[in-house]
Amino acid sequence: MFAEIVATGDEIRTGALIDSNSAHIAGRLEENGVAVTRHTCVGDDLAYLSTVFSEIGNRADVAVVTGGLGPTADDLTAEAAAKAAGVRLELDPSALHSVEAYFKTRQLTLNAASRKQTYLPAGAQCIRNPVGTAPGFRLKIGRCQFFCLPGVPAEMRRMLADAVLPQIVMRMGNNRLFYRNRTLSTFGLTESRTFERLAGFKKAFPQITLGLQVQFPAILVKLYARGTQDGQLKEDLAAGVRWVSQKIGHFVLSQQGDPIEKVVGDLLKQKQASLALAESCTGGLIADMLTNVSGSSAYFVFGAVSYSNQAKIDILKVSPETLKRCGAVHAETAIEMARGARDISSTTYGLSTSGIAGPTGGSEDKPVGTVCIGLATPEGTTGHRFHFWFGSRSRHKQMFAAAALDVLRRELLSIDALRF
Amino acid sequence: MFAEIVATGDEIRTGALIDSNSAHIAGRLEENGVAVTRHTCVGDDLAYLSTVFSEIGNRADVAVVTGGLGPTADDLTAEAAAKAAGVRLELDPSALHSVEAYFKTRQLTLNAASRKQTYLPAGAQCIRNPVGTAPGFRLKIGRCQFFCLPGVPAEMRRMLADAVLPQIVMRMGNNRLFYRNRTLSTFGLTESRTFERLAGFKKAFPQITLGLQVQFPAILVKLYARGTQDGQLKEDLAAGVRWVSQKIGHFVLSQQGDPIEKVVGDLLKQKQASLALAESCTGGLIADMLTNVSGSSAYFVFGAVSYSNQAKIDILKVSPETLKRCGAVHAETAIEMARGARDISSTTYGLSTSGIAGPTGGSEDKPVGTVCIGLATPEGTTGHRFHFWFGSRSRHKQMFAAAALDVLRRELLSIDALRF
Repeated sequence: MFAEIVATGDEIRTGALIDSNSAHIAGRLEENGVAVTRHTCVGDDLAYLSTVFSEIGNRADVAVVTGGLGPTADDLTAEAAAKAAGVRLELDPSALHSVEAYFKTRQLTLNAASRKQTYLPAGAQCIRNPVGTAPGFRLKIGRCQFFCLPGVPAEMRRMLADAVLPQIVMRMGNNRLFYRNRTLSTFGLTESRTFERLAGFKKAFPQITLGLQVQFPAILVKLYARGTQDGQLKEDLAAGVRWVSQKIGHFVLSQQGDPIEKVVGDLLKQKQASLALAESCTGGLIADMLTNVSGSSAYFVFGAVSYSNQAKIDILKVSPETLKRCGAVHAETAIEMARGARDISSTTYGLSTSGIAGPTGGSEDKPVGTVCIGLATPEGTTGHRFHFWFGSRSRHKQMFAAAALDVLRRELLSIDALRF
Repeated sequence: MFAEIVATGDEIRTGALIDSNSAHIAGRLEENGVAVTRHTCVGDDLAYLSTVFSEIGNRADVAVVTGGLGPTADDLTAEAAAKAAGVRLELDPSALHSVEAYFKTRQLTLNAASRKQTYLPAGAQCIRNPVGTAPGFRLKIGRCQFFCLPGVPAEMRRMLADAVLPQIVMRMGNNRLFYRNRTLSTFGLTESRTFERLAGFKKAFPQITLGLQVQFPAILVKLYARGTQDGQLKEDLAAGVRWVSQKIGHFVLSQQGDPIEKVVGDLLKQKQASLALAESCTGGLIADMLTNVSGSSAYFVFGAVSYSNQAKIDILKVSPETLKRCGAVHAETAIEMARGARDISSTTYGLSTSGIAGPTGGSEDKPVGTVCIGLATPEGTTGHRFHFWFGSRSRHKQMFAAAALDVLRRELLSIDALRF
């Protein structure tokens, strides 16, 4: 079965927005054994849209389209699909029901713009949208079954998983190829060093495709396998994961591809330990990452974002003398911050960051990209100083946050801290 | 002049990698007055590649292709382009020179794999790659001028800017079209309500294209114009921005499309005011957002992420009695948190959040999606309670954070707070 993907919208066509939907859809289709042959992006233009739909109707078995289902005049997917299929738009009772239900639960009244979303090409089957206003639809154009979904990623992903993939898998019947993958998350090696350590994988596992993907600042190692025997695929992949883990060692964060905040949270939970943070240069990012994990209140007690020196002194009890002698960006200051956060919140661990994310604020002695990390444990304190260079404030914050969490991860696993 | 963009490679086709190159190229072409009509992605497959090149050769004036120029066997762009143009590959002296120079400056010897990169389609002009091994090339296929560049973003961007765009602009001569856009950021109206308020824009400004883009939880209003007179375009767009601002009113965050954290930061700076935060359900996200703005240390003094009740009592001096009487998620508790944050850090304003981001923790009285926001000012305190439903923890955190910052923004502008 051959599939194509279409992303619609002037924002994507003109480059104002990077299309991440098509990669998500391609990944999910390939996982389910559907070969994706082409992606196309076209703007909010009726003629271009219907031309692209007609072309695909002559060439593919399945197409997934995103975008252009909203209430506004430049949302043209339904009209273009109708044109390509040679049918009219008509009021669809399921679509009306879906839109009405959305408005009703929010105690809003249906407006004229949203009523437009209830008109679908004649013969289309409505795909309900449980998380937004725009219903999707399924329609045959030429020899190809089209699935048209909204462009909002959360809505698209939900409808793809709940409604579209099951229908496609059902159509494939017994010809189904299984496609499995495993992902390991790693932190602390560059992409090329990771690649070097994995030399020899192809020889050991010719049936598995290996890929690296940067999910800054983590690097994901991906293993892909395809075949008709699902059990065998899973066994092969498990062996591949063991091989990779051995080569990458303690740089592996998780054999399930978990992000570092989840890995550290799980370790804290296992040890029934609790954590307080004192963030300066990371500005709340570590707390935000930790609290993105549901259930983090079990171990995350308190975080201080102490941007000013006065807050470091008043709230975290950092000694004014240390600040004067060493400055804000120093391992000793970081240690006092970590100890202060741990003390005021009575946690097992205290973790701190102080550094220069840039673009301004650097000096010869402490250039932009410098970060000091402090860790306070029941046994004592340690301080670390790293220097990175990624040229952007947000990348520095991300790297600093991951480096700090990695200091704690390695402490929790009783392994040596990284040196960069 | 009509342009198309092609991204090649199995990583992109299968969704392992998100294609950011096409958006960059589209943006640069549109900026230079070249209309991009379509993007295509196709894998490392000779037949598909040459088919796509032939199709584009019949339909576009210019095409920019990325990827498939590397040294390995699955790098097929040159071969596919030669096939589509009906020519052979031959050794290109400029390409040889470019590759040799790259190896020489790195004191490496040219290997067999890299020698493959010196063969280009007959009649192609080599495009030197100053930052990597793979040279690009220009080739006419059908009526279309193709520019083939490497897929490595840094190399592609450099070669696009240095070699490709100047050639395209030169070809356009006096027919050059200018393309300008303006973006306003808004918060607090749904997409369809925003659209309703902008009814009549098309009639008032037929020369401007209007588009809405959700950048959750903000909605961006985008105005696009194209023409030969750059000064006129700018004037038209400025008038359009004024019209939109009048219709959207206080829901407009910024006429420059700034995010709410930048808008609030600028207002604080103007007033020489300072801010402390007490975050519970937003878990550091507001602090992270504020500190993503360079220069935020001028007004952002301290943030507390008080996940536990004990931290609220010990550090923010919330009364245990209030917590017992009202619970953690309550306007009164939020007010005490905001006051506490302001008091301990001696700032002009204190802002707090306490709510239920989910997926667990909701009750009938306080369902998931409930947030209480407290604001402490030199004049007193206010409390707000909102309820949202977005079905995901991270969306709730984003919405709560924006709602809290909007409470402060409206206070700084002396306008009424929103009611959701």
